[in-house]
Amino acid sequence: MKRSGSQASQKGPLECFIGTVRIDPLFQAEEPGRVAGAYVTFEPCSRSNWHTHPLGQTLIVTFGRGLHQRWGGPVEDIGPGDVVTVGPDERH
Amino acid sequence: MKRSGSQASQKGPLECFIGTVRIDPLFQAEEPGRVAGAYVTFEPCSRSNWHTHPLGQTLIVTFGRGLHQRWGGPVEDIGPGDVVTVGPDERH
Repeated sequence: MKRSGSQASQKGPLECFIGTVRIDPLFQAEEPGRVAGAYVTFEPCSRSNWHTHPLGQTLIVTFGRGLHQRWGGPVEDIGPGDVVTVGPDERH
Repeated sequence: MKRSGSQASQKGPLECFIGTVRIDPLFQAEEPGRVAGAYVTFEPCSRSNWHTHPLGQTLIVTFGRGLHQRWGGPVEDIGPGDVVTVGPDERH
């Protein structure tokens, strides 16, 4: 069991984000599993740079309002309860 | 994108739960991925029966207070921010 507050927050690395973003690790699967989860908290006006994930990413919005865009696609408004699935190597 | 409210809630099946439990699906990985996620909401005094997961389970507590127990282990109080990792075929 990982108790609330027992895992240190990290700052989103400068090469990945613009503005202040906090990353709170939640879990990391043991081998051969590869899934990991974290809370990522964006201050107003912060954002990630365009990027991809080799195995894709699922975003579950828990709080606030935000914008999400896939490369070449429309900007989409997202809010609590929305789930965004991004495929392997899909730029977003 | 799965919009909030677009995925129907399910009732926790009677053979798995005691009391009223709501399951709100979030995501299901495409093959060959096998990970899936859902919100599971327990009414007061409801609980799951003893069970296992072939690939294990990670519980991320988002709201309320609850109790968790591994077979043969102590009853543990859990609350928001706690993360419980249950291994493959570990009874809980």
